[in-house]
Amino acid sequence: MRELTAEIIEEFIRQKVEESRSDGVVIGLSGGIDSATTSKLCEEAIGAEKVLNLFLPSRSTPKGDLADARGFCEREGMELRVVDVEPSIKAFESMLPEARRAELRGNVAARCRMIVLFHHAKMMNRLVMGTSNKSELLVGYFTKFGDGGADFCPIGDLYKTEVRLLAKKLGIPKKIIEKVPSAGLWPGQTDEGELGISYDELDAVLAAMELNIPLEEVSKRGGVAMDKVTKVWEMHRATVHKRKTPLIPKLGVRTIGLDWRE
Amino acid sequence: MRELTAEIIEEFIRQKVEESRSDGVVIGLSGGIDSATTSKLCEEAIGAEKVLNLFLPSRSTPKGDLADARGFCEREGMELRVVDVEPSIKAFESMLPEARRAELRGNVAARCRMIVLFHHAKMMNRLVMGTSNKSELLVGYFTKFGDGGADFCPIGDLYKTEVRLLAKKLGIPKKIIEKVPSAGLWPGQTDEGELGISYDELDAVLAAMELNIPLEEVSKRGGVAMDKVTKVWEMHRATVHKRKTPLIPKLGVRTIGLDWRE
Repeated sequence: MRELTAEIIEEFIRQKVEESRSDGVVIGLSGGIDSATTSKLCEEAIGAEKVLNLFLPSRSTPKGDLADARGFCEREGMELRVVDVEPSIKAFESMLPEARRAELRGNVAARCRMIVLFHHAKMMNRLVMGTSNKSELLVGYFTKFGDGGADFCPIGDLYKTEVRLLAKKLGIPKKIIEKVPSAGLWPGQTDEGELGISYDELDAVLAAMELNIPLEEVSKRGGVAMDKVTKVWEMHRATVHKRKTPLIPKLGVRTIGLDWRE
Repeated sequence: MRELTAEIIEEFIRQKVEESRSDGVVIGLSGGIDSATTSKLCEEAIGAEKVLNLFLPSRSTPKGDLADARGFCEREGMELRVVDVEPSIKAFESMLPEARRAELRGNVAARCRMIVLFHHAKMMNRLVMGTSNKSELLVGYFTKFGDGGADFCPIGDLYKTEVRLLAKKLGIPKKIIEKVPSAGLWPGQTDEGELGISYDELDAVLAAMELNIPLEEVSKRGGVAMDKVTKVWEMHRATVHKRKTPLIPKLGVRTIGLDWRE
């Protein structure tokens, strides 16, 4: 079953690169499990030489992450480039004094990374492969037009707990798999701390929601406290806009040019 | 008919602000017709005090644009703030040498503006109202996650030629309406020069395409050269991805946690 998952995702990657006549893909490699898994899937799909990994540190990036990213790329024979995004974040701080606040700075950082990724993609005729997983996407735990800004999301239909299973199968280094999940947007940030729920619980709730199981039953059968279940539902509801293209009011009448209707 | 158009769009703006419990909107005001029209519609919908206009110049911004933007906001009693985005663009140029190339710099500039707009929106609990029109959207004449990155696009179903009619009705200053359309991403850039077709012709072709009229007939009856008609169709086709959220490969089997299916 897990090999089948990899096969479907890899076929998707191959097709998208081919359809768009791209020369490869660009990935923001953080040293964490999601981006390593995405990168490995791309490598298996289109070959190592067509995958460019970009490590994009800021001052809050944990020290060991570069070594993990580098070790991974060396073992796989994939290219890694490092672009420090701190100068761009600093520029925004000089323009926008409030950008020093952690949660605002985090959004700026995520969007600066998007700029660097798309810059390389445009320059090299490549696609930006996003690294968001299904758990993050469903609760809106990403920056709109930041890490959420990509051409495709290969692991976007895999829950975090599923990414862990797949990563093991793909031979992603244990150290990367077992790292505490963090968006790395400020020092000491952890996903589970910020979300207020573990990924095991979050995924159990999300998978139940997907099957339309009543929230009370999710709590009872899943053994997840009711306030956590409700919070997941609220996060999902409040972030619908982050999973959509910008909405446009549809108009019924045209006034322009030729009347094509005879 | 045009008043009806304004009414529909304004009702849309009111509803979106209310639904999202936002305290207002943020708009990138360039001194051009699209952003002035969007701003005016927002003002009529939710009141001047809830509309923050941001003028976001770079070194390629034409000299007179600030005066036009300022005059417009003063007349309407709306707030205008100026944030020079040049320092952020320069930071990216220092990180990415190729970003000096005009077309790459243009994308960086558009995305830096997006960052500034969303920074203000987050800080003030407001929505970012995009200013893209239907003509630009349909041929992908915008930067993905740059000027294309917004919460809503109020005039996204109005062709450029329709925006002109509506702008007149709304009393937008003649000087702004008659300005040569330009994305302002490099000096001397004009939309029509870059697109290789006038908006009158472009909109005639797009409106015909919307009615599924064969391309040959569009050319013959519309009096638009066949190579231009074909080019519009090609631009539309090649930019489908810019009008979608990042695609995800859908997987059929789950492996996680509890089996909710009993």
